[in-house]
Amino acid sequence: MSPTSHALPAGAPVAAPAATEPALAHRVSRAVVTVRGADGAPLADADVVVGQVRHAVALGGIGFDVVDLLDADAHDPDGPGAGAPPEVGRRLAELFTEVFDTATLPFYWGAVEPERGAPRLERLERAARWFADRGVRLKGHPLVWHTVTADWLRELPTDEVERVALERVRRDVTRFAGLVGAWDVVNEAVIAPVFDNEPTQNGITRWFLERGRIPVIRAAFEAARESDPRATLLLNDFNMGTAFECLVEGVLEAGVPVDAIGLQSHMHQGYWGEERTTAVLDRFARYGLPLHMTETTLLSGDLMPAEVVDLNDFRPSAWPSTPEGEARQAEEVVRHYRTLVAHPAVQGVTYWGLGDAGAWLGAPVGLVRADGTPKPSFAALRDLVRGEWWVAPTTVRTDADGHLVLHGFLGDHRVTAGDRAADLVLDRAGDAVVDVVLR
Amino acid sequence: MSPTSHALPAGAPVAAPAATEPALAHRVSRAVVTVRGADGAPLADADVVVGQVRHAVALGGIGFDVVDLLDADAHDPDGPGAGAPPEVGRRLAELFTEVFDTATLPFYWGAVEPERGAPRLERLERAARWFADRGVRLKGHPLVWHTVTADWLRELPTDEVERVALERVRRDVTRFAGLVGAWDVVNEAVIAPVFDNEPTQNGITRWFLERGRIPVIRAAFEAARESDPRATLLLNDFNMGTAFECLVEGVLEAGVPVDAIGLQSHMHQGYWGEERTTAVLDRFARYGLPLHMTETTLLSGDLMPAEVVDLNDFRPSAWPSTPEGEARQAEEVVRHYRTLVAHPAVQGVTYWGLGDAGAWLGAPVGLVRADGTPKPSFAALRDLVRGEWWVAPTTVRTDADGHLVLHGFLGDHRVTAGDRAADLVLDRAGDAVVDVVLR
Repeated sequence: MSPTSHALPAGAPVAAPAATEPALAHRVSRAVVTVRGADGAPLADADVVVGQVRHAVALGGIGFDVVDLLDADAHDPDGPGAGAPPEVGRRLAELFTEVFDTATLPFYWGAVEPERGAPRLERLERAARWFADRGVRLKGHPLVWHTVTADWLRELPTDEVERVALERVRRDVTRFAGLVGAWDVVNEAVIAPVFDNEPTQNGITRWFLERGRIPVIRAAFEAARESDPRATLLLNDFNMGTAFECLVEGVLEAGVPVDAIGLQSHMHQGYWGEERTTAVLDRFARYGLPLHMTETTLLSGDLMPAEVVDLNDFRPSAWPSTPEGEARQAEEVVRHYRTLVAHPAVQGVTYWGLGDAGAWLGAPVGLVRADGTPKPSFAALRDLVRGEWWVAPTTVRTDADGHLVLHGFLGDHRVTAGDRAADLVLDRAGDAVVDVVLR
Repeated sequence: MSPTSHALPAGAPVAAPAATEPALAHRVSRAVVTVRGADGAPLADADVVVGQVRHAVALGGIGFDVVDLLDADAHDPDGPGAGAPPEVGRRLAELFTEVFDTATLPFYWGAVEPERGAPRLERLERAARWFADRGVRLKGHPLVWHTVTADWLRELPTDEVERVALERVRRDVTRFAGLVGAWDVVNEAVIAPVFDNEPTQNGITRWFLERGRIPVIRAAFEAARESDPRATLLLNDFNMGTAFECLVEGVLEAGVPVDAIGLQSHMHQGYWGEERTTAVLDRFARYGLPLHMTETTLLSGDLMPAEVVDLNDFRPSAWPSTPEGEARQAEEVVRHYRTLVAHPAVQGVTYWGLGDAGAWLGAPVGLVRADGTPKPSFAALRDLVRGEWWVAPTTVRTDADGHLVLHGFLGDHRVTAGDRAADLVLDRAGDAVVDVVLR
């Protein structure tokens, strides 16, 4: 980052443009910061640069393109969790960190371990390290899911399915502990035991059917928890109705260690609007757990007809991004993120696909076109999360006591003076008093 | 009952016409019965009359008409749980026991106790005794429901709503213990906390919303259980999907003492058909609890359009029973009962309205027209449950050891010889050996 052109006078707060918006008060801290030198003495009347590094709320995307980019030989455009072709993936990798600070990596069992006993985890680890090196937090998706699961489970008796499924949870969570901080532990459990879109029953559906949803969820969460006690463990679903509510209630009554609720929000049939979005958030916030909007998409092309029930059933031969669609998408992305971040329960938002290349169903959901050029939504989202809600590097003069005032969004900031620097974390909304020591 | 005209020869089994249907094997017993005199000695080579009294599986209807008939001054055709006008109710009361052996009584809180502290339980007790005197089992509906609940709950804080709601459960279950053998303890909990069809929030919805579904269900079932340990306690819902599945799973994981699952099955939009019906039964049978089809209806007139989501939204000014509709209904009623009784998990079926008079939404759901004349469905159902599946009183000669063979449906039968008689209960499917002593 580079300092802004003009220095603020002593006493002037360094502030994010939207720091005073009442609807965002729970996301913002106004901190009186004492800047100290390495000797501990206040750095009085000195020019320092203050800037934000990352939001506390996870504003993420999927990192599938980077996985494929770093393992280009293995790129399979039709495979599960496929990224863009490497030539576009290269551009997406550059653009990723301009809007996102968290990446979801594809741990689909069927892709991770198509052949039993030969897990392909190196490519995921390579991508994870690429992101971590760039300050991007990581999330794994999913550990238990009835779709894109290992085909070879079909042959195993249910006891064995359960055993190997839990082994795989332990194996992957253990291997990525400290690197992947959050997991969609169980995905779409509401429908899992009654899922019948396949000619033969997959092993995970059978496991759910024979043991029940809650026992499967409990076993998976306990396996993940024991493998990485610090990870954030999510129960994720596309069902936004009473079924997922009832499941969450049952799971919590049963004492399953769920850390957060994941709500998918693919909007192929149109933007939900503020009212519906807030109603959904309110209904799931009742359980006292943080909420992640785990799979958010807004189209920049024609919408899927409302009468389609299973989105997988709609596969047009071409689904182009259109100028009108892109204008609409840019507006809706901003409205949607404003609504989500305004809700106190939201701890994370994952946009499900930076680029159109390789997108689910071929839909134009990306913020970037299939050719790698950004759509208007890309700049619109960046202007919001790294503009309005952000403290760009700003030079400010400390006062006679070495104080400066930072009025910014919760998250990681950095203070630098010459070749010394210090991290500055705003971790609680409201007024704060913070000391930083430049080293 | 009167004996059939011809006596069976010694050794010939007394059998229900459908006793050998493989699909019903779980409902049928083939018992070698030793008939003994009061002295305990086998009654050899004697003519006795054998006949069925009641099915083990509860084949019931709603008893609302009888409540109003016995308390005609209080009949309010627009009130909750209203029965037919007394002049039609009189005919319905006669017809009831020709097809039904179990009656559901209306315990809607808003009707039972419209004024706080002045419960109107005498009229329900009068009706309950009327049915019990005729050998009809009783079920109460419902104890906790957000609809037709007491209006005065709106004024109370939630703690108080909870307290009085549980008091009312204890009061009513205690008073009717030994008379009402089954209760819909909680009705429609899936939708209860998100129910918003009313201008102001009812007290029960608020209770569910603030405490959660499972805590409310647990409290209600525990109150009912302690008030009548022998009663069959049902969790009843109209949701036949994953939401009710998830709720049932959570409730059972939480250890709530649920005895049976109640599945409503109003078919105002058309008969489900055998395949869907069996699929629903199979999905809920997974939990190992008996199933009751608690609110079955099939129309004898035009169907409600498929696009209506909340059936309450459809209120035509007139909804006549038609000749074609009546023929269709008669066929579908028989198909539906065959499907239900063929399923081993089904413990009860309640047809939701013997007559059209006073039917929910004014729909022609009854087996009897509004003027009190039976539709074809009435005879069709009677021919099935009291014909094919029934042992009509039959004279048979015992053999030299006092034996006779009864091949009939599980339930209560009776053996008589002259002025002596004995109850004969078939309570387990398959072959059985039974002794009865005539007294």
